Amino acid sequence: MNKKGVLIVISGFSGVGKGTVVKNLIEKYQYSLSVSATTRAPRSGEVDGRDYHFKTVEEFQNLIDYNGFIEWAQYVENYYGTPRKYVEDELEQGHNVILEIEVQGAMHIKEQYPDAVLIFLTAPNAETLRQRLEGRGTEDAKVIAKRLKRAYEETDDMPQYDYLVVNDDLDICVDEVHAVILAESFKTEKHKQYIKKMKEELFEIRKEILS
Amino acid sequence: MNKKGVLIVISGFSGVGKGTVVKNLIEKYQYSLSVSATTRAPRSGEVDGRDYHFKTVEEFQNLIDYNGFIEWAQYVENYYGTPRKYVEDELEQGHNVILEIEVQGAMHIKEQYPDAVLIFLTAPNAETLRQRLEGRGTEDAKVIAKRLKRAYEETDDMPQYDYLVVNDDLDICVDEVHAVILAESFKTEKHKQYIKKMKEELFEIRKEILS
Repeated sequence: MNKKGVLIVISGFSGVGKGTVVKNLIEKYQYSLSVSATTRAPRSGEVDGRDYHFKTVEEFQNLIDYNGFIEWAQYVENYYGTPRKYVEDELEQGHNVILEIEVQGAMHIKEQYPDAVLIFLTAPNAETLRQRLEGRGTEDAKVIAKRLKRAYEETDDMPQYDYLVVNDDLDICVDEVHAVILAESFKTEKHKQYIKKMKEELFEIRKEILS
Repeated sequence: MNKKGVLIVISGFSGVGKGTVVKNLIEKYQYSLSVSATTRAPRSGEVDGRDYHFKTVEEFQNLIDYNGFIEWAQYVENYYGTPRKYVEDELEQGHNVILEIEVQGAMHIKEQYPDAVLIFLTAPNAETLRQRLEGRGTEDAKVIAKRLKRAYEETDDMPQYDYLVVNDDLDICVDEVHAVILAESFKTEKHKQYIKKMKEELFEIRKEILS
């Protein structure tokens, strides 16, 4: 019916498993993943174009000036941005594009793309989230408390998302996120052209039968 | 998160395969199907309680008086209605309930149950619909033209449905309808209580870690 792709924004609490869910979504279903641009230095093992598009500050600022990002933000000293061209080309070709971004960026996306689907990934409960953060084993209590504080603050933004999906079992969660995106493409408001065409065709075919 | 079931209304053009889609949905996934009540005489092979709840006109009118239906209608000389108790009990128990009803009934449902999900099943195009109607082999051109006229009129009601799903390949269609219903249960607006609880829990856990 409608051929344009769906723009999907995935956010979620730190520790909820966003990265794994997104990775599995892309492997199991056909989604295009937007790779962010950043001015921070590549970490060991990171590949330019796969993990990030690494840019100098000058390049990045130039891209901002040329409206090259659909959203960008500065954290500490580094810039992060979502390249406009990739996203718009993919949507135009009918591909569904996933952006894994923070709450603030998500709100910017929704302003520019009202049809974007905002999904917030959450845990069954706070205790599970704490356990997952502790399970990483790399962070001390203070860091975990800081992440939980951030999560606490993010609960205020959750109502702005279209859907909440709980990541309890990974495979189920991936299928549920996929179902949400699939459903979105069936919304009647996206198929006005199809309805119009159907109406015309039905009129013609009926005339033909009766003639 | 939320335990209440989803009320699903399925309508669609005559010949589109509604009955088969609903049958497959119930077999493949766990849905409760609401069986309508009617005053028309049982046809050969029809079983009371499975195909319809067969009622006398007096019984039916009495049920109307006691608000026993969530919607009812009279076609020609017969009454048809959706029993309120079954639907509400199932929803209360967290089961998703499917109603296969006509456009007018669907609108009555939406008024009473704003959370109901209205799905309209359609064909890839009008020609396919004509072929399916002809394929039944039991109906002459005039009857088919009448059904196509009805379909033509129904296109005006399609925008009132939440979702349009094309029945091209049966298995795909069944999975798509299921995805729509699944997605509906993840809508953020249905999980205000969960968000509130998560916020409280996060606050407590963080306090505990820092103490």
